[in-house]
Amino acid sequence: MTATADAPGRPDTAPIVPSYVQGRWWTPADAGVQDPSAADVHDASTGHLIRRVSADGLDLAAVVEYARTTGRAGIQAMTFHERALALKHLALFLTDRKQGMYELAAATGATKRDNFVDIDGGIGVLFTYGSKGRREMPNSTVMIDGPFEPIAKDGSFGGEHVFTSIPGVAAQINAFNFPVWGMLEKFAPAFLAGLPSIVKPATPTAYVTEACVRLMVESGILPEGSIQLISGSARTLQDHLDYRDALAFTGSASTADLLRSHPSVQHGGLRFTAEADSLNAAILGPDAAPDTPEFEAFVKSVFAEMTAKAGQKCTAIRRIIVPAAVAEDFTAALRDRLDSRVVVGDPREEATTMGPLASLEQLADVRGAIASMVTAGGRAVIGNAEAADGARIGEAAGGSAAQTGAFMEPVLLAWDDPRCEAAHTIEAFGPVSSLFTYDTLEEAVELAALGRGSLVATVCTNDPEAVRTLALGIAGHHGRIHLLNRDDARTSTGHGSPLPHFTHGGPGRAGGGEELGGIRAVKHYMQRSAIQGSPDQLTAVTGVWHAGARRIIAGCEKFGASADAVHPFRRALDTLRVGHAFASDLRTVRAEDIAEFAESTGDVFYAHTNPEAAAANEFFPGIVAHGYLLVSWAAGLFVAPGRSPVLANYGLENLRFITPVAEGDSVRVMLTAKEIRPRVDADYGEVVWDAVLYNQDEEIVATYDVLTLVAKEESQALGG
Amino acid sequence: MTATADAPGRPDTAPIVPSYVQGRWWTPADAGVQDPSAADVHDASTGHLIRRVSADGLDLAAVVEYARTTGRAGIQAMTFHERALALKHLALFLTDRKQGMYELAAATGATKRDNFVDIDGGIGVLFTYGSKGRREMPNSTVMIDGPFEPIAKDGSFGGEHVFTSIPGVAAQINAFNFPVWGMLEKFAPAFLAGLPSIVKPATPTAYVTEACVRLMVESGILPEGSIQLISGSARTLQDHLDYRDALAFTGSASTADLLRSHPSVQHGGLRFTAEADSLNAAILGPDAAPDTPEFEAFVKSVFAEMTAKAGQKCTAIRRIIVPAAVAEDFTAALRDRLDSRVVVGDPREEATTMGPLASLEQLADVRGAIASMVTAGGRAVIGNAEAADGARIGEAAGGSAAQTGAFMEPVLLAWDDPRCEAAHTIEAFGPVSSLFTYDTLEEAVELAALGRGSLVATVCTNDPEAVRTLALGIAGHHGRIHLLNRDDARTSTGHGSPLPHFTHGGPGRAGGGEELGGIRAVKHYMQRSAIQGSPDQLTAVTGVWHAGARRIIAGCEKFGASADAVHPFRRALDTLRVGHAFASDLRTVRAEDIAEFAESTGDVFYAHTNPEAAAANEFFPGIVAHGYLLVSWAAGLFVAPGRSPVLANYGLENLRFITPVAEGDSVRVMLTAKEIRPRVDADYGEVVWDAVLYNQDEEIVATYDVLTLVAKEESQALGG
Repeated sequence: MTATADAPGRPDTAPIVPSYVQGRWWTPADAGVQDPSAADVHDASTGHLIRRVSADGLDLAAVVEYARTTGRAGIQAMTFHERALALKHLALFLTDRKQGMYELAAATGATKRDNFVDIDGGIGVLFTYGSKGRREMPNSTVMIDGPFEPIAKDGSFGGEHVFTSIPGVAAQINAFNFPVWGMLEKFAPAFLAGLPSIVKPATPTAYVTEACVRLMVESGILPEGSIQLISGSARTLQDHLDYRDALAFTGSASTADLLRSHPSVQHGGLRFTAEADSLNAAILGPDAAPDTPEFEAFVKSVFAEMTAKAGQKCTAIRRIIVPAAVAEDFTAALRDRLDSRVVVGDPREEATTMGPLASLEQLADVRGAIASMVTAGGRAVIGNAEAADGARIGEAAGGSAAQTGAFMEPVLLAWDDPRCEAAHTIEAFGPVSSLFTYDTLEEAVELAALGRGSLVATVCTNDPEAVRTLALGIAGHHGRIHLLNRDDARTSTGHGSPLPHFTHGGPGRAGGGEELGGIRAVKHYMQRSAIQGSPDQLTAVTGVWHAGARRIIAGCEKFGASADAVHPFRRALDTLRVGHAFASDLRTVRAEDIAEFAESTGDVFYAHTNPEAAAANEFFPGIVAHGYLLVSWAAGLFVAPGRSPVLANYGLENLRFITPVAEGDSVRVMLTAKEIRPRVDADYGEVVWDAVLYNQDEEIVATYDVLTLVAKEESQALGG
Repeated sequence: MTATADAPGRPDTAPIVPSYVQGRWWTPADAGVQDPSAADVHDASTGHLIRRVSADGLDLAAVVEYARTTGRAGIQAMTFHERALALKHLALFLTDRKQGMYELAAATGATKRDNFVDIDGGIGVLFTYGSKGRREMPNSTVMIDGPFEPIAKDGSFGGEHVFTSIPGVAAQINAFNFPVWGMLEKFAPAFLAGLPSIVKPATPTAYVTEACVRLMVESGILPEGSIQLISGSARTLQDHLDYRDALAFTGSASTADLLRSHPSVQHGGLRFTAEADSLNAAILGPDAAPDTPEFEAFVKSVFAEMTAKAGQKCTAIRRIIVPAAVAEDFTAALRDRLDSRVVVGDPREEATTMGPLASLEQLADVRGAIASMVTAGGRAVIGNAEAADGARIGEAAGGSAAQTGAFMEPVLLAWDDPRCEAAHTIEAFGPVSSLFTYDTLEEAVELAALGRGSLVATVCTNDPEAVRTLALGIAGHHGRIHLLNRDDARTSTGHGSPLPHFTHGGPGRAGGGEELGGIRAVKHYMQRSAIQGSPDQLTAVTGVWHAGARRIIAGCEKFGASADAVHPFRRALDTLRVGHAFASDLRTVRAEDIAEFAESTGDVFYAHTNPEAAAANEFFPGIVAHGYLLVSWAAGLFVAPGRSPVLANYGLENLRFITPVAEGDSVRVMLTAKEIRPRVDADYGEVVWDAVLYNQDEEIVATYDVLTLVAKEESQALGG
């Protein structure tokens, strides 16, 4: 562990990337392994040996067991909101320290722009889940999914669905291209779901992941055991995982298949999700002639996706599908842009705009793929299909790289037969794309579908009919569709950038998995269970009041109130409980009330003003009170005059008018505290109130949820 | 095809159950196969040979291709609502003809009660999806999933998720125990999603499925190719399925593993879901002493689940977990109930309450499983663990069955070591359960989890703490939890009955799949795609107006209206389009408006009446107008006086108050047609209007959706 980096020719002196397991840093020496079989990692630009990677001697069973016990215990003791706040704090902590990660990542070939995607992008995922977790999830450990389904007519039996943490751990096996984002985009939703993570980074860039994990551990923000890192082979990790756990993989389709065929997935019920590289398409619409903003936006998008990360992106544009008439113009425009803007070189040099591939092995793979594609009929119309090694290309591109740098320049292959199978199945994981032409929209859809399932496709057109036909035509084959036109050309976050808000993953070749997509990703680490029972039981399990469950009612004794019950609007969160309720008196609607409301608001809709038209309407008995009058009255009926910890009524949900109210009818309201969400970072919280308006015959007039902010303590009450 | 049933001793004369493929009925003879290798099917009670099953010579590639082409074309031409209405009509058609299916199913051993679950239950699934499809899905072929996510600050770029049909077919492979329900619970959501189905029933009861398919075809309700039936081996079906398709399996865990290991799933991206038998638990709470209603409800529930379908239910209660103190009382109570109520026999006999198992093979399997459990430590405390054949038991139970009937009486095994592995892993798929005792709630949770993933568990307790601890403790291991107490004992639909509203499936041993659960099940046959773009593009693709997209505005020209635009409330559905909008004038709020509103409604909350308290509230600048005043005014501002095809404002969604409005501020409203859903079975439809309230400074005061019913044609307009 005392060896230094950058010592070419003396491979045994490069430091081993440590693992972090069972709450401590670990190398094979800690297991008494003095001569581990380690993989060498070289600087992508200089070729210098900089690290060795080995987990020889690591007890993976103990790693998993530690996650199951210590790891789960710490996270499970937190609510969703507490976990989300920890993610936000972690994001802030890493933001302050990202420069160190930038510098380290340069050795992987990453430019500043690449680091922005990987490191800032990864931190961005933490911010997004830190925010969404508090805004879109309850401050609890159980989350209701979808509406309540009433079953028994008398209300004594019904059900709904809940999400709870799956009862195991989250393992992740990542690709080399995004050592930070690749970890954090999986870690954040798993942590929010209540699961500890076991991270297995790809060997060539494991040292960047290790640096990030080191910061996460140093932050002290995460409970013990939230994260473990395996720097080295984790081939037997799956032997210790079962139906309680989840394994998320990013990488090649062949490795995905290997992991999927493991007995833990085949027979053990292990949840397995894969996100594999796919041959993503970009389609230029028939309207997008060379002088249109769409044509320009399309060329820029293809350029960005071919060169970012030197094309080593699972979301890169691999297949460009353009109208036959513009193929030449497109090729010329792309060539111009590549020629004028691409400077291949060491990312540590100022002029460099595109770094090397991650390794010479990677370069050899890409060259091999290009050779196969040329054999199958691809013609290089940009770049050199036959360049044999990276050093020569590095020089050709004017870089000052050492002979062993993994440099290459972009290559565009044109295909005379757009349906050639190789063009849609062979992937060169570098700055390489294929060009196809089409005559009809149906043909464009067919070509995109030949990718047999992709992560993402761009559809670039300003024609509403074309965008609908193309997008809906290819949707079933794609996990994400990026629509580009003059309106969003400047503001689009791009074809290749998975945002935490949107699903990342795709069917078929793309692995069949789903990651990200906001809180959807958290649910992948939770078990959905249908839960059927009585209102009191459902209330007990979920912590959310269900219609028909017990309540303590204040207000009108005729409607069930106890004389000694306190109006729930007088309770701060410290004493308010779900089921605390208020029953109002009845108030009678007079004809002049309706007329005056129509007059004062201007709402003269015929159902409130024209007796004949109202009666002719099948939904009304004649003139009826305005729905807005009724909810306004309800607020007057349930308000607690004077001093109150209620800070605001900030909204209303699910309002439905059920029974019309005519002159002479009366209404009353029953208001019940349904859900209470104290904020983890404020002295108030949200309270959702179930509101039901009844008429004098106990028929339901309207139902809705009233959304309020309520202070945590009585001392914060206002008014009086 | 002229052979008759019930011809024991002459097996070559029983009719072959036909398949229905490519729009016609088919037997091996149609492929020129004169001597197919057929499986014999016997009457479960009499042992008579009644059918033979063979698909020898069937061209499965052609079956799949027909589904991909003709099958998809017909369904894809329909909207979700049209498909849902077809399901409702189909349900009505089958309801009128269910008697014939009842009679046929008696030969499988099904009693009247069993048929109610299978045949009426299956038809019930059609009714539920017929209803939910129209209430919960748009009248379209694309469905938005979740909220819009704004990305660009200027509103020009954002995204959301959509569901579209996966681009293939739905195949199903079913278990023998529910020949009708098993098919329809998969068919309904697949059809609603737009997919044709290929049905492979289990051989022993394929003739009942065939009868149902025959009715479905005869109904003429479904478009051509919606359903194909393979009566016989479909071993190579998977060879023709790929990432475009979905395969849903119900049956044993071992067959599930076999299907899952097929290359189509391993490498081909075929969506595979399995629902396998599991060892479902029922837990009696510590409070449920023998004299409580919970104890009684628990005994009844166990009784029902042991005897319904002779215990041949994937959801049956296999593991009974009770407090140690009540084990003896429980056993005695269950024995009493079994003794007094179980009459094993031919379902065609009046007195029979429990039919035979489906076949002698099935009986032998169950007896073998019991023997293994006894060897492992199980003790029969009810019934005979060692009865060797069904005929003897049939006689013992007083039945008049023929010597070859597959009869057996219920068996309860007690386990001294409640953690014995065999007790939690060996399944006897008949009227057989195991009994365990516990001392603490934690122990009860642990025992339930030893099933390593189950479809369903019952938790029976009237203690809110116990129900929360038990339900949340086991939720991660279960797809469904049934809560039982005195309140729902009479109205519960039971532990063992999967309702279409609730997820059916479970993790681990239960197969890891999810079926049913309302519209969730439809989504399993759809691809979720993130879709990112400009507001106009998202509007074009989804058919739903997005904020920022083009609109045609009527009303106030100062706020963008065209002089010749028509107020959208004057348009019926035949001319109304999304993006038709109305901009109102500004209206100024005076102090007396707030005071009068407080007076007339009674809403004297301090923010509207007490200047000091209002100013002390961090969310308000001082006295503010009531939110309800603002939405009431908005209705007055956007109403179109006089004649209108708008029939009703039936509700409101997602109301949020953003910027407070004080005395002297002005408000106006912009109303835009966002979503238009003409009903398939009425002369009106729903229109959702995007409503935004602005103040005089163009700040957003409030946002919400107004829900209205609008006539399809102008001639239906009222008022004037």
